[in-house]
Amino acid sequence: MDKSITKIKIRGYHLDVYQHVNNARFLELFEEARWSHYEHYPPSLFVDNGWGFVVVNINVDYKYPALLGNELIIETKLVKIGERSATLRQEATISSSGKLSAAADVTFVMLDLNTKQVLPIKGKLFDVLSGKFQFTNNGSKNKK
Amino acid sequence: MDKSITKIKIRGYHLDVYQHVNNARFLELFEEARWSHYEHYPPSLFVDNGWGFVVVNINVDYKYPALLGNELIIETKLVKIGERSATLRQEATISSSGKLSAAADVTFVMLDLNTKQVLPIKGKLFDVLSGKFQFTNNGSKNKK
Amino acid sequence: MDKSITKIKIRGYHLDVYQHVNNARFLELFEEARWSHYEHYPPSLFVDNGWGFVVVNINVDYKYPALLGNELIIETKLVKIGERSATLRQEATISSSGKLSAAADVTFVMLDLNTKQVLPIKGKLFDVLSGKFQFTNNGSKNKK
Amino acid sequence: MDKSITKIKIRGYHLDVYQHVNNARFLELFEEARWSHYEHYPPSLFVDNGWGFVVVNINVDYKYPALLGNELIIETKLVKIGERSATLRQEATISSSGKLSAAADVTFVMLDLNTKQVLPIKGKLFDVLSGKFQFTNNGSKNKK
Repeated sequence: MDKSITKIKIRGYHLDVYQHVNNARFLELFEEARWSHYEHYPPSLFVDNGWGFVVVNINVDYKYPALLGNELIIETKLVKIGERSATLRQEATISSSGKLSAAADVTFVMLDLNTKQVLPIKGKLFDVLSGKFQFTNNGSKNKK
Repeated sequence: MDKSITKIKIRGYHLDVYQHVNNARFLELFEEARWSHYEHYPPSLFVDNGWGFVVVNINVDYKYPALLGNELIIETKLVKIGERSATLRQEATISSSGKLSAAADVTFVMLDLNTKQVLPIKGKLFDVLSGKFQFTNNGSKNKK
Repeated sequence: MDKSITKIKIRGYHLDVYQHVNNARFLELFEEARWSHYEHYPPSLFVDNGWGFVVVNINVDYKYPALLGNELIIETKLVKIGERSATLRQEATISSSGKLSAAADVTFVMLDLNTKQVLPIKGKLFDVLSGKFQFTNNGSKNKK
Repeated sequence: MDKSITKIKIRGYHLDVYQHVNNARFLELFEEARWSHYEHYPPSLFVDNGWGFVVVNINVDYKYPALLGNELIIETKLVKIGERSATLRQEATISSSGKLSAAADVTFVMLDLNTKQVLPIKGKLFDVLSGKFQFTNNGSKNKK
């Protein structure tokens, strides 16, 4: 899967004193979209391998205010995958106007939750992050 | 310790579409005050005993809006301690006007985090929750 | 509309130190479900009338922990409508097990956002809150 | 004022599934520190001038996990002030270990909340943002 789309409706509790989506809240909306991006894999795939996503950098531009009742279309795609870290590009567009509201580059590492060590991104982990790994219910797992 | 006072300044990110502290956010402010209420005990006292506070009921009245720049004075006191649960009464007053903004009765149990069983509130646990337990740095622990 | 259903997937950012959905966060999930409950009405219906929902009491029972990956089915229904306030009953059930995770009675008033006065719940407002009001795009509005 | 210090104790509700302060929550802690940074000015100074802080970019590095019970020392200082935007550097250090937990460059503009136009940063506004403006209670306002 190259990219995914998550839709989020803006509610009263997302807003702050300026009546737009708060800067911190926007990172929650982007996190929601990242969980959704990898949701075609069952949590067990990560839990059983002891894999944890740990964000190391976020560079986010706030471009245009998202307001009450707006629907945000968040597009998430992997734009970089290195030996020890990877970067997802996330863009939140207001559906009614097509305006880009916020865009973030989110760089993360995969941690071995048992040893707390950063994992090299290769083999199955590489395939999972890049969406090439195919999980099947009967336990057999093949590349697409 | 019978009761404690926690002061919190209301910021732009605490507000919602109605420009007052959001109903869910208020519970975070009350939770902050509960952590503060038991802060004279070191976290290790709870961690070493495997004790976890688990809220089972909150009954909260929202009386008067808390606005940007208001300082809330949150008073927390134990008002009930039963065999298996206890209740903290929390009242948030706006310092400039003296008006009661919100008040909550928060009922919780103490969980043994290892067995996930609810603990009977007696002995040392009773003393801790009621504030009669005195923690000392040299390891000797006596009632006040 | 008598009752509505909102589904929410539990993510890593919903959890707290106890690895379950935090007590305050649960109120956000319930608020999300309330926005959804009245979503068949356009925001303009409320904005044009200057109507604001203001929560005056929440009584919430936390029954069973909601964990990472759980899907919550939140049922919202109006259970009481008085002269000046109304109460929504909200129940969050874990879809995989059918266990009730949390349940809240949320009592609110409708405020005239211009005068800041509590509105009597009658006429069109009564019909809207009770779901009997039918909004149509061509501007004609009839009871169902 | 060149720089300010804000101390925040990490509580159970700040943590997420990984038991560290969540990436979005960290932005709230930084926002808290920014409100505190300008708190020696009364809100009326901003309200009366119709000035609003609007964040346009945050570049945040997450360096070391902040855990339950940690105290964060957040240092905030203005590092850049341009014709239309300014940048605050914020560093959150864990007080017990001295380790840098997270650091952010937060770039913002000042908006005229009435016209929604970005204000040029000069004159009184320049002095306020750079901390050279001195607010006095009797209404006379002088540079330090």
